[in-house]
Amino acid sequence: MLTGKSIVIIGGDARHVEMMKHLIEKDATLYAVGYEELEEEIDGLYLTDVDHIPQEKVDAIILPITGLDKEGYAEAHFAETSPHITKDWLEGFRGDCILFTGIMTPYLKELLSFKERIIPLFNRDDVAIYNSIPTAEGTVMFAIQHTDFTIHNSNVTILGLGRVGKTLIHTFKGLGANVSVYSRHEDELARIFEYQASPIRDEELEDHLKDCDILINTIPALFVTPSLISSLPINSLIIDLASKPGGVDFRFAKKRGIKSILAPGLPGLVAPKTAGVILARVIHNIIMENQ
Amino acid sequence: MLTGKSIVIIGGDARHVEMMKHLIEKDATLYAVGYEELEEEIDGLYLTDVDHIPQEKVDAIILPITGLDKEGYAEAHFAETSPHITKDWLEGFRGDCILFTGIMTPYLKELLSFKERIIPLFNRDDVAIYNSIPTAEGTVMFAIQHTDFTIHNSNVTILGLGRVGKTLIHTFKGLGANVSVYSRHEDELARIFEYQASPIRDEELEDHLKDCDILINTIPALFVTPSLISSLPINSLIIDLASKPGGVDFRFAKKRGIKSILAPGLPGLVAPKTAGVILARVIHNIIMENQ
Amino acid sequence: MLTGKSIVIIGGDARHVEMMKHLIEKDATLYAVGYEELEEEIDGLYLTDVDHIPQEKVDAIILPITGLDKEGYAEAHFAETSPHITKDWLEGFRGDCILFTGIMTPYLKELLSFKERIIPLFNRDDVAIYNSIPTAEGTVMFAIQHTDFTIHNSNVTILGLGRVGKTLIHTFKGLGANVSVYSRHEDELARIFEYQASPIRDEELEDHLKDCDILINTIPALFVTPSLISSLPINSLIIDLASKPGGVDFRFAKKRGIKSILAPGLPGLVAPKTAGVILARVIHNIIMENQ
Amino acid sequence: MLTGKSIVIIGGDARHVEMMKHLIEKDATLYAVGYEELEEEIDGLYLTDVDHIPQEKVDAIILPITGLDKEGYAEAHFAETSPHITKDWLEGFRGDCILFTGIMTPYLKELLSFKERIIPLFNRDDVAIYNSIPTAEGTVMFAIQHTDFTIHNSNVTILGLGRVGKTLIHTFKGLGANVSVYSRHEDELARIFEYQASPIRDEELEDHLKDCDILINTIPALFVTPSLISSLPINSLIIDLASKPGGVDFRFAKKRGIKSILAPGLPGLVAPKTAGVILARVIHNIIMENQ
Ligand SMILES: NC(=O)c1ccc[n+]([C@@H]2O[C@H](COP(=O)([O-])OP(=O)(O)OC[C@H]3O[C@@H](n4cnc5c(N)ncnc54)[C@H](OP(=O)(O)O)[C@@H]3O)[C@@H](O)[C@H]2O)c1
Ligand SMILES: NC(=O)c1ccc[n+]([C@@H]2O[C@H](COP(=O)([O-])OP(=O)(O)OC[C@H]3O[C@@H](n4cnc5c(N)ncnc54)[C@H](OP(=O)(O)O)[C@@H]3O)[C@@H](O)[C@H]2O)c1
Ligand SMILES: NC(=O)c1ccc[n+]([C@@H]2O[C@H](COP(=O)([O-])OP(=O)(O)OC[C@H]3O[C@@H](n4cnc5c(N)ncnc54)[C@H](OP(=O)(O)O)[C@@H]3O)[C@@H](O)[C@H]2O)c1
Ligand SMILES: NC(=O)c1ccc[n+]([C@@H]2O[C@H](COP(=O)([O-])OP(=O)(O)OC[C@H]3O[C@@H](n4cnc5c(N)ncnc54)[C@H](OP(=O)(O)O)[C@@H]3O)[C@@H](O)[C@H]2O)c1
Repeated sequence: MLTGKSIVIIGGDARHVEMMKHLIEKDATLYAVGYEELEEEIDGLYLTDVDHIPQEKVDAIILPITGLDKEGYAEAHFAETSPHITKDWLEGFRGDCILFTGIMTPYLKELLSFKERIIPLFNRDDVAIYNSIPTAEGTVMFAIQHTDFTIHNSNVTILGLGRVGKTLIHTFKGLGANVSVYSRHEDELARIFEYQASPIRDEELEDHLKDCDILINTIPALFVTPSLISSLPINSLIIDLASKPGGVDFRFAKKRGIKSILAPGLPGLVAPKTAGVILARVIHNIIMENQ
Repeated sequence: MLTGKSIVIIGGDARHVEMMKHLIEKDATLYAVGYEELEEEIDGLYLTDVDHIPQEKVDAIILPITGLDKEGYAEAHFAETSPHITKDWLEGFRGDCILFTGIMTPYLKELLSFKERIIPLFNRDDVAIYNSIPTAEGTVMFAIQHTDFTIHNSNVTILGLGRVGKTLIHTFKGLGANVSVYSRHEDELARIFEYQASPIRDEELEDHLKDCDILINTIPALFVTPSLISSLPINSLIIDLASKPGGVDFRFAKKRGIKSILAPGLPGLVAPKTAGVILARVIHNIIMENQ
Repeated sequence: MLTGKSIVIIGGDARHVEMMKHLIEKDATLYAVGYEELEEEIDGLYLTDVDHIPQEKVDAIILPITGLDKEGYAEAHFAETSPHITKDWLEGFRGDCILFTGIMTPYLKELLSFKERIIPLFNRDDVAIYNSIPTAEGTVMFAIQHTDFTIHNSNVTILGLGRVGKTLIHTFKGLGANVSVYSRHEDELARIFEYQASPIRDEELEDHLKDCDILINTIPALFVTPSLISSLPINSLIIDLASKPGGVDFRFAKKRGIKSILAPGLPGLVAPKTAGVILARVIHNIIMENQ
Repeated sequence: MLTGKSIVIIGGDARHVEMMKHLIEKDATLYAVGYEELEEEIDGLYLTDVDHIPQEKVDAIILPITGLDKEGYAEAHFAETSPHITKDWLEGFRGDCILFTGIMTPYLKELLSFKERIIPLFNRDDVAIYNSIPTAEGTVMFAIQHTDFTIHNSNVTILGLGRVGKTLIHTFKGLGANVSVYSRHEDELARIFEYQASPIRDEELEDHLKDCDILINTIPALFVTPSLISSLPINSLIIDLASKPGGVDFRFAKKRGIKSILAPGLPGLVAPKTAGVILARVIHNIIMENQ
């Protein structure tokens, strides 16, 4: 429980709205800046602006997923203008106040006073693992929409056994696909076998893709090259999850006539509510631990 | 293998195109009527019309899913005009020729000569079970699209443990949902328990729905009444799979502010290719058995 | 709840002890005949004999799994002598009293007064399905004990998709086996496919067994003949679950050098407590319905 | 393929026999020392002694799981006397010859010439992960044998999410248990949730054990203390997988009347053949890479 804790949310999107509800449920006192256009009424939420925050009482500040831009503005989906956050203002908080952001930005890096107490949530393994679940479901949605066959009994190849890759195995096996996974580590190949999927080594990959129906990339590097794409059947589908610029040579795929999709930001797209709860839960745990 | 067998396809949709490919692969000789606008070229397919069919050689005729209408017309997605099939013409086939249709129609019932040899494919349990797979995947797609939370860890209640209901359990459990299923038979409740889902009896249903996130109806009767709907949380989702007119009081759901979707024809929508292969496989088996 | 209900248990084994506890928990009044040697003390249980039962108050009688033998004796694992139950004595119960037995016996068939009210529990589908779970786990135990390889990634073939067969698929797939199932019905073959197992038809069976590591029979007929056994690899294992005399030609298997096990009565062997709870639950539901 | 490669196996057990078959299948030339009493005949295996090995041709040496003891003896299950391996003799091999052992021993540490080329297989993550599969199946076998209820629907708590812990989740969830897992890392708790099991934190563990039916320990430290054991129901079962001396206070468990089992060496016990194949596969890969 967060009884007695005060939290300021500055800017944000649908995920932050869910976060607020969750944190209020945990009995925190919540101030929101940049929510003038929020239609929903949330009991116990103080809609306010930067000038009316009782800074010395605040235990944590939550910024948008995108943090603060070069000039200190916070993206706000529920306000006409982005709140502006100056370094001076931030100096006014207590020495143990925590600053949560989605990702680190240059502006945030310069906040010397907060240095040790800035937490870029998306860098954390637990957040990445929780987010891998809506990511996998978004991938399923695209796979169903963009193919004319069932996932059940189709051949799905996953590239990479990182945090998203592991979840994708469960999700696609759960739907009855024949799942194979490429990794470059012996221990990961063993784990893939244990998951009842087919492990694929470097030297086997090209040959293996000849029977692939759906290729899902999680490797954040230009891994799906023309030579790999050439191995794929014409009516297969490529879904690229890797962060921009992605890991697929889209130009070549198009030339080959193979449908390929870049699918960024799936958690926010298919499950903003769950994505908000995930963040709220992690924020809750961190505040509790820092007590 | 269907070597030496001749089959006529009259009208149909994307599923029939897939069927043709599959049957040609099995070495059947294939005549297609009502495909003048098919863009794809299929090797070994004879595009023709009713007057040029070598009737005495034909082992099987395949009609559209919707059969023949009152006047004997066959729906044809790939032709401007629907082919017209007269009873006289049908009399011209051999006494052991099989007539496949999706569903039975009054016009077909009157074809006394074919009586025992008309096979309404959608009446068959095997077809219904194979089709339950794309049906379940279509349901998943809608569930992901129309909610703002993940299926993983959400509470999904399925009404009915028929051919579709059984498949839905596997599909939604495979995605990590907490699945519960309503049935009115003791043996089915036992099977639900064995599937690691929660069995729900009549008297428990209303109370149980209080925590339901997604309600999926497969019961072909007005089962989801206002009193059941009133038990659901406001932000739950109802997906109705039952054939028209469906099993949900949509008017009341709307009034309550609960999102509800009628989702007919999912196999043709999300996986026409698989749906075509399913039918081709069953047709293949039946022709082989009737040899 | 069974408040106000009186039940007599006559003879039985470890399953009946568990049953008693469960029924007492549901607030029934319980009389036990043939339990003089029960060591455990069960709160609220009346240990008595046939002469001290208040017959007119009794709502249900529970016999051993084996019912009553030709002379009316009830097997009692916790007594030195089997209680003797005469037809005269049974006449003394109310006209709506229910008589539960595991299986029907000739002596029970002659009890004209009870005719409609004798319930052979093991004939019921729900009981068979619940019991299929400990049956499958017992099969797993034998499979692990009697092979020198893991079930994970081994080839397991199941004969028959009845009540036990369906559960075996879940259990062995859950452990990571490659499961294939033989059935003689098209709709069952479709369901096997949906379960993500490999359906096997008659004509494919022999050939298929060449790669089989574990063969599990549930077909209650001499199905595993010398010709099937000859197809199996020498170091495969046969587990026969079918009721006596079983469905395997054990003599021939031995001659071939293939290890084969007849494994009857698994629920009572590996999970008497669960088996007792299953029966108690079904008895409870029947008594409630007959109210 | 290992065509052209020569391998010497010195001592070992049933796993080594399986290894030999596998390596011969891959076309290696195989010399075995300490197999005089092997009954089975293996085609292509040279049974010999240390004095007749063409040392300069040898690419790899395989020792027993236990390596070499203080005096240089190799345990040999299929010989009356353990082969003796002197440092001098080992000096006679080529500079690129690899020495495989199960575990490192003081005697092996002193082999300066082999230093970089000694591979203690059981230290490797891939071997530990492959071995976790038979380990989990052995745990299942004990769980079925030593309880009177089914694993299906029982509450199973796993301590530790290491290489064995992860596999145990799949295995026990596959059998239908309600699985919960204790870990001390936030990212592992997230992964446990993704696996559809219940994550348990330090502060929740004691309370959680009140409903535990089977407790499985994988933590190699005295973790299952009297205070944890006191929280368990009397008829629960503890299975300790941690290496000697184990992680359970067995004396206290006994005093409480709770059945507890120390289950070491499960892969060799329940699946020596699979365990041998695992090692052969890893050895194969390492030899190939070192080419
Ligand atoms: N689309 C979305 O909505 C969404 C959601 C979440 C994440 N993502 C993105 O998806 C990607 C994967 O995320 P993640 O959390 O799973 O990351 P991760 O845990 O770091 O996994 C990435 C995997 O790729 C492997 N890899 C990297 N470079 C490789 C190379 N050149 N060859 C072979 N394997 C290579 C890594 O293996 P090594 O250990 O060998 O490097 C690792 O296993 C990231 O780009 C992330 O931003 C997208
Ligand atoms: N949307 C799509 O794309 C799609 C695809 C396939 C099927 N469908 C439709 O979905 C529905 C289900 O198909 P199915 O193949 O699963 O049919 P099914 O096998 O007949 O199953 C229907 C189930 O509903 C139960 N039921 C019927 N009336 C009931 C009532 N009044 N109360 C409680 N239970 C009742 C039946 O139980 P009893 O045995 O007790 O009657 C049966 O278990 C049908 O309407 C079908 O046309 C739609
Ligand atoms: N060992 C144990 O502890 C244990 C526990 C439970 C049950 N059992 C025994 O296991 C057996 C199976 O039990 P169950 O409850 O699963 O029975 P079930 O539901 O009747 O299933 C038996 C299956 O065998 C099929 N079958 C019968 N004769 C066949 C034949 N000649 N060829 C092909 N298939 C045939 C049946 O198909 P059709 O519908 O085509 O006839 C049915 O699918 C019974 O003998 C039962 O007594 C043993
Ligand atoms: N019985 C058998 O047949 C058999 C077979 C295989 C393995 N084993 C044994 O089983 C044990 C586990 O093997 P493994 O391969 O899974 O090892 P592992 O991968 O190292 O896993 C051990 C886990 O225990 C955790 N742990 C260690 N000390 C802890 C503590 N004080 N409190 C909480 N967590 C703690 C570790 O977490 P941290 O990362 O936080 O340290 C790690 O997650 C070993 O003792 C191994 O020898 C036995």
